[in-house]
Amino acid sequence: MADGLTVPFALAAGLTGAVAKTHLVVIAGLAEIAAGSIAMGLGGYLAARTDFDHYESEKAREIRETEEVPGLEKEEVADVFRGYGMTEESIAPVVEAIAADRQRWVDFMMRFELGFEEPDPKRALHSAATIAGSYILGGMVPLAPYMIASGIYTGLKISAAVTLAALFAFGYGKGRLTGISPLRGGLQTVVIGGLASAAAFGLARWIS
Amino acid sequence: MADGLTVPFALAAGLTGAVAKTHLVVIAGLAEIAAGSIAMGLGGYLAARTDFDHYESEKAREIRETEEVPGLEKEEVADVFRGYGMTEESIAPVVEAIAADRQRWVDFMMRFELGFEEPDPKRALHSAATIAGSYILGGMVPLAPYMIASGIYTGLKISAAVTLAALFAFGYGKGRLTGISPLRGGLQTVVIGGLASAAAFGLARWIS
Repeated sequence: MADGLTVPFALAAGLTGAVAKTHLVVIAGLAEIAAGSIAMGLGGYLAARTDFDHYESEKAREIRETEEVPGLEKEEVADVFRGYGMTEESIAPVVEAIAADRQRWVDFMMRFELGFEEPDPKRALHSAATIAGSYILGGMVPLAPYMIASGIYTGLKISAAVTLAALFAFGYGKGRLTGISPLRGGLQTVVIGGLASAAAFGLARWIS
Repeated sequence: MADGLTVPFALAAGLTGAVAKTHLVVIAGLAEIAAGSIAMGLGGYLAARTDFDHYESEKAREIRETEEVPGLEKEEVADVFRGYGMTEESIAPVVEAIAADRQRWVDFMMRFELGFEEPDPKRALHSAATIAGSYILGGMVPLAPYMIASGIYTGLKISAAVTLAALFAFGYGKGRLTGISPLRGGLQTVVIGGLASAAAFGLARWIS
């Protein structure tokens, strides 16, 4: 969502400085939103699918190893506990308990040896839709003012005001959720949006 | 990098269909690359910093809990092993061994109870620079043909050819690294790029 706010805003601001034609700014902005939402939504979906396939293939390998080389796999379980400074006498019963159930044994290896969390295949589609939807919604915030305002520079001013306010609100809310200072979170997203737009504006004006 | 290839390519293709002026396509493309590389690089850096701060604050909380309520924290360690079906007699020495060293105890809680991997603070800067650099490099692939070619439609054709080839190569290489079929990986990134560009082209043409 922050990218959806920032990139179309910066692009529109950059083009305003360079071409000063509202309909071009709106066309470029909508084209960017269409491309960005598809690239990020579909890209996110396929990345999540790839993670899932990767997890499944690693899991199949671990299952095969517990069948073919159970001794080595038990040693790997023991190594995890050796890393916690446990004595060999106390490790042995732990390893036997875990290895008594193949499902549990493989789960232990996946999580503690390889550090994998089991991905949820249903989440892929949901997260793709959320990413694409947020990108479109976010992108319409900076672009709508250009469609409504009478002049392109009025559009730019309203766009800057609502986008920076939206970026601040987004960063503030995200800061609250992740436990960092909401004020700091809000200022961070505003600074990113401001720098990206200033660069786009300056570059577009310089070459035009 | 795939986003860096896809979005500027789709934007340039979309504008070609709508405005047919090479210098506008190049200006919009460069503005998009500037905005996208800053938004994603800086956004990635701050996200990595936030992860690090979040990890540190959770770790501080765990350290405090092992000091203030050690009994409860030992129970939480025992719960992890109960989840693996171990008997109470074999759990007790394991818990004592882990809790004997506070550093190890807290590490265990972070990783096995909360599922956190320790983030590397140096990686934040490195990954930000990589993201921004890849976005710029990726973005120049679809844009350079417009700068060099004699006509805008020639530029579009060369841009489409080199970008789809680069997307395929990128997806192919990524497929090899993550263990999915390279051919499938290559086709996936090409399909994303193609769909995003078709949508941008169609939308831009339709509204102009």
